[in-house]
Amino acid sequence: MSTLPYRSALIIGAGSGISGSLTRRLRAENIPVVIAARNVGKLSALVDETGAIALPVDASDASQTAALFAETDKRIGAPEIVIYNASGRVRGAIAELDAAEVERAVAVSAFGAFHAVQQAARRMIPAAKGAILLTGATAGVKGFALSAPFAMGKFALRGLAQSAARELTPKGIHVAHFVIDGAVRSGQRADPPDAPDSTLDPDAIAQTYIDVLRQQRSAWAWEIELRPWVEKF
Amino acid sequence: MSTLPYRSALIIGAGSGISGSLTRRLRAENIPVVIAARNVGKLSALVDETGAIALPVDASDASQTAALFAETDKRIGAPEIVIYNASGRVRGAIAELDAAEVERAVAVSAFGAFHAVQQAARRMIPAAKGAILLTGATAGVKGFALSAPFAMGKFALRGLAQSAARELTPKGIHVAHFVIDGAVRSGQRADPPDAPDSTLDPDAIAQTYIDVLRQQRSAWAWEIELRPWVEKF
Amino acid sequence: MSTLPYRSALIIGAGSGISGSLTRRLRAENIPVVIAARNVGKLSALVDETGAIALPVDASDASQTAALFAETDKRIGAPEIVIYNASGRVRGAIAELDAAEVERAVAVSAFGAFHAVQQAARRMIPAAKGAILLTGATAGVKGFALSAPFAMGKFALRGLAQSAARELTPKGIHVAHFVIDGAVRSGQRADPPDAPDSTLDPDAIAQTYIDVLRQQRSAWAWEIELRPWVEKF
Amino acid sequence: MSTLPYRSALIIGAGSGISGSLTRRLRAENIPVVIAARNVGKLSALVDETGAIALPVDASDASQTAALFAETDKRIGAPEIVIYNASGRVRGAIAELDAAEVERAVAVSAFGAFHAVQQAARRMIPAAKGAILLTGATAGVKGFALSAPFAMGKFALRGLAQSAARELTPKGIHVAHFVIDGAVRSGQRADPPDAPDSTLDPDAIAQTYIDVLRQQRSAWAWEIELRPWVEKF
Repeated sequence: MSTLPYRSALIIGAGSGISGSLTRRLRAENIPVVIAARNVGKLSALVDETGAIALPVDASDASQTAALFAETDKRIGAPEIVIYNASGRVRGAIAELDAAEVERAVAVSAFGAFHAVQQAARRMIPAAKGAILLTGATAGVKGFALSAPFAMGKFALRGLAQSAARELTPKGIHVAHFVIDGAVRSGQRADPPDAPDSTLDPDAIAQTYIDVLRQQRSAWAWEIELRPWVEKF
Repeated sequence: MSTLPYRSALIIGAGSGISGSLTRRLRAENIPVVIAARNVGKLSALVDETGAIALPVDASDASQTAALFAETDKRIGAPEIVIYNASGRVRGAIAELDAAEVERAVAVSAFGAFHAVQQAARRMIPAAKGAILLTGATAGVKGFALSAPFAMGKFALRGLAQSAARELTPKGIHVAHFVIDGAVRSGQRADPPDAPDSTLDPDAIAQTYIDVLRQQRSAWAWEIELRPWVEKF
Repeated sequence: MSTLPYRSALIIGAGSGISGSLTRRLRAENIPVVIAARNVGKLSALVDETGAIALPVDASDASQTAALFAETDKRIGAPEIVIYNASGRVRGAIAELDAAEVERAVAVSAFGAFHAVQQAARRMIPAAKGAILLTGATAGVKGFALSAPFAMGKFALRGLAQSAARELTPKGIHVAHFVIDGAVRSGQRADPPDAPDSTLDPDAIAQTYIDVLRQQRSAWAWEIELRPWVEKF
Repeated sequence: MSTLPYRSALIIGAGSGISGSLTRRLRAENIPVVIAARNVGKLSALVDETGAIALPVDASDASQTAALFAETDKRIGAPEIVIYNASGRVRGAIAELDAAEVERAVAVSAFGAFHAVQQAARRMIPAAKGAILLTGATAGVKGFALSAPFAMGKFALRGLAQSAARELTPKGIHVAHFVIDGAVRSGQRADPPDAPDSTLDPDAIAQTYIDVLRQQRSAWAWEIELRPWVEKF
């Protein structure tokens, strides 16, 4: 039995450790999970470990997202939890960036989130129930030099999150935006011995997502900023 | 045994239901709790129920706050959790407010918080451990008409919280600021039948405070906004 | 002779009264102005009145924007002032919006601004001189219900503006973002007699843009919020 | 004849170059100016140069502020422009600050501003006319480590400014808050030769204040952030 008030989950954007940690936590609650990414091949270990279902998607494409939700409906029922973790990032001086790459980056960070929120809303509004969690970054509240495309995408995501919260929360759907401030730990990047916990442990991030999923509707958080204790801000 | 990494708690400002809910939750974790307020008489039922220790304080007074911490040290050891819930509110047109009342309101909301953070810092820095939770309000991020004193106090509290987070977090002390957006439910004010959970349940608020106390230092939240699902914002 | 430190201007997005007022003000300073819009036909009166040059552009298209700047170079020299006023807006419930229209709206509000900033940067960086003014809206700082696409586009614009300011300002280029909060007055929409100046007069907006263009680099504004005296916020 | 719509000005807090530059600019418009500070002795050169009237005040004291306004009424008529520039700053680790000094710093930055806004409101509301300009700092939007008292004071000032704007703007009174981000140039601190204009020229700041005073009520700014072109933010 799950300690969460939701019975099914769809996680989009499986590149980072956050998606893996969330999959493990939700599966530990016996919640069926679909995890979607462009490249499902790299998810095979996670699938083997957790029993999650991996499905391929280019999240920036509206029709592929629609198809992903339809397939999810078939496999585990309409998702009551939808988490969007995908983002597009290209760095460089404004004068030198490639316009098509900029548009592509924003499409992944923001259009993909819109498509997911739209599909989620269509399923959750009739049920008056559901949770939509959107993974943002510091770039969504502060536009850094030499990183305009990431700022555009993550600001747009935050604008979407706020608008969606104002529209959907009174319909019983919990919309929350997370500002992840710092590098997320991964197998490739361990913390230096003299700076323990200087990167965000994806399990620690996932814990706060789970806490938010358990919040009672009289006191919902719509935005939470998470950073390592030693991170400058 | 407690599931929290802290062994003692001091809660200042016991007027609202938030302090009561927090006392119950912390006591349920077997953590000794001192609860301080100007009028300890009204805390007797809570003391009887939970075994918390009630101590009197005018939190806006630096020396009384120092004495409160010293007494807390004796009773339960130096507090590893310090929560500041007191606030001063006076409404009215700017032209008509009484200057002394304005100063008094800011003193309770902000000076009292400073005194508490200072006493907490003196104890927590040597231990490289502790959590300081500050209860703010929407008035701390939005200054409403006819409510200048509350805006001044809660903005100042947020400035203190941010400055304290930048100074103390790298010393191992978790500083978090909560933006409570809406009316907190109380015995006197039940939700209307057609608007369930339209006020913040203090138990639901307390749950998020507890979640924050459990956060691992690689992913600490410094600010969380909580509001009822149907609250306009 | 101009009282401004710039010698040429390109204004993109001529739909609103702001572009007209700016054209008049800049022309009154004897600054040559190119004004670009999708439909140049509706600009003929302004062209006749001011001697500005009208050029067609779909601002959301990178190659059309590049061609516009190249043609501007030929006509009036590389623009030392670039103002982006275009925006895309589509309203509706998230569940019912057309995904392609959402993408199109964001493309006009944000991608078009990126293309313009990029072309401007390529010209202004070598000259270590120039001003880029971006017209935002309240939707860029607050995401309203039933207006997700406008929020996404205007948040993205603000992220671009902040990133561009951090990158380009130290190169001598003034980047400023304007938050226009309220309805802009137009021929079709006069203020009610009992609410004078309850809409933004485009001439008044243009005055602040001109003031910003005159700012000395030791005290540049990067963001200014403008609203009618009676507007709620 | 003045090009401003106001006929009298009171500037409180004369320590910085901003007050001097504003006095010169307003006097150049033939507007009578009272300039008030704790130590009027250091204003004698400015008084000799401009013909402004210097009056002593401890701005943090409500009754002294009331007396200052009453005396100003007699000397130049009720002030139609009120500018508050005073601030209190004490730096140090939270654990080591002196509580009385902290309270004193906030009293100067914020209580003094309240007293001035209150006196201004009492005069301006009946006239449905006036401008109140409040000089803030980056510390009012970002709380830095080791500077809690300045953050508390400047956050509180910003909260006051926002609340006052919401209350007084619809009554015809222009309330504006300035975020001065960087060091203000002074005789003692010239810019290094390799970093021209790396400090804010008080004349450049004053120019923007004058621009704001000239704004037409259909497009009033309530907050403007000013920084040198090379300032990190």
